[in-house]
Amino acid sequence: MDEEKGISKAVIARLPRYYRYLGELMEEGRERISSQELSQRMKVTASQIRQDLNHFGGFGQQGYGYNVRFLHESIAKILGIDRQHNLIIIGAGNLGQAIANYANFERGGFMIKGMFDVNPRLIGLVVRGVEILGVDDLERFIREHDVQIVALTLPKAKAAEIADRVVKAGIKAIWNFAHVDLVVPEDVVVENVHLSESLMRLSYRVSSIQDQAKERALRERGDQERAAKERSKARRLQVFEEKKAAMR
Amino acid sequence: MDEEKGISKAVIARLPRYYRYLGELMEEGRERISSQELSQRMKVTASQIRQDLNHFGGFGQQGYGYNVRFLHESIAKILGIDRQHNLIIIGAGNLGQAIANYANFERGGFMIKGMFDVNPRLIGLVVRGVEILGVDDLERFIREHDVQIVALTLPKAKAAEIADRVVKAGIKAIWNFAHVDLVVPEDVVVENVHLSESLMRLSYRVSSIQDQAKERALRERGDQERAAKERSKARRLQVFEEKKAAMR
Repeated sequence: MDEEKGISKAVIARLPRYYRYLGELMEEGRERISSQELSQRMKVTASQIRQDLNHFGGFGQQGYGYNVRFLHESIAKILGIDRQHNLIIIGAGNLGQAIANYANFERGGFMIKGMFDVNPRLIGLVVRGVEILGVDDLERFIREHDVQIVALTLPKAKAAEIADRVVKAGIKAIWNFAHVDLVVPEDVVVENVHLSESLMRLSYRVSSIQDQAKERALRERGDQERAAKERSKARRLQVFEEKKAAMR
Repeated sequence: MDEEKGISKAVIARLPRYYRYLGELMEEGRERISSQELSQRMKVTASQIRQDLNHFGGFGQQGYGYNVRFLHESIAKILGIDRQHNLIIIGAGNLGQAIANYANFERGGFMIKGMFDVNPRLIGLVVRGVEILGVDDLERFIREHDVQIVALTLPKAKAAEIADRVVKAGIKAIWNFAHVDLVVPEDVVVENVHLSESLMRLSYRVSSIQDQAKERALRERGDQERAAKERSKARRLQVFEEKKAAMR
């Protein structure tokens, strides 16, 4: 079996993207695909693809291609999305509701068992058939509904306290949207989604492009002194370009 | 100035986190902080912090610490969040509305100029004072409101087509939440937030822990044969542990 060989963390990190493309191929009714065609679709070299998918045993046959469904199912097994994960969402604001409504998750075996909030004005509301509960009985709910994953979409002021509570209640996986670094025991995994840091990275890259454009405009106007000033700013762009190159 | 030295992409990637911690210190009314204390708060070595913050010139004085506000402002400048970025959100569903309501963004200089949707049932609704518009006049709106960033929170079926339109309209930065890889020209930057891939990474880590627990239980029950089976699954956990170690 695949794990016998031990799969590197770099390959694991790439699996969700393979899984997505294979799912699209299945929607198109494709049964097989060659590493060459997959390479063109995913903008990854064919040899990279062959290396990665070799981990799943010899079902990439020369000149015959990969069995899409089998590969899709094998990757699902590795990622653990072939089994059911019970999930609750704590923080029933817009982001929490967005996640509750993200139907794709259930296709991946993620069952939203409950939604919670600390804001009394939200308690009792129903989102997609799920009633928003208060956090008083959080521990009992986690126990009774065999919850494995907690999505934290609370303001950061409340997130740390709630995280402590769910960890004490036995939760080993937190999907953290709160803009704070949670302190958890070694055996608890936290997947962070820091939206504002993502937006800052984008801002950095946009600003670099703006600075470079400004410098170009100044140079064209022959304003050498100010162009030099802008050039130093534009250094940022180099960094960004390196980054982009590194990602290719 | 900082960029004269050229800041590595690794440092840039760490800046949003520094920015967040410095912001929290300002909220606490702190004027200065030593690399040692910042190190304890951020769980990063003090020497790492000194290395990173050296790029901003010599305002970390021995035994005196960093000037919190100056450092906060300097990082804001590098990230380009000291200037205003006009942003529109295309896709006014839950996720789009979550982003529209995420007040923090405006503190970072991100002004939400408009919300758009392809769904006629949403057009005309008002979210936080912003009316949801149809996409017919998208290009004109981008021009007239000097929009620099487009947040794409559309279903993936529509995302590629809309991305092409906004790029043709001159947009150089897309914050992509659609579960698809956008194909854009070299000079357009895309920051992807693929929530379901994030959840799959979490699922992988949770499943690894479950497999290991199962193996342990079997071994305790002395069921060696089945334990061996589970052990191969548990290899995943090693990968995850390596990953975790690597992140420290």
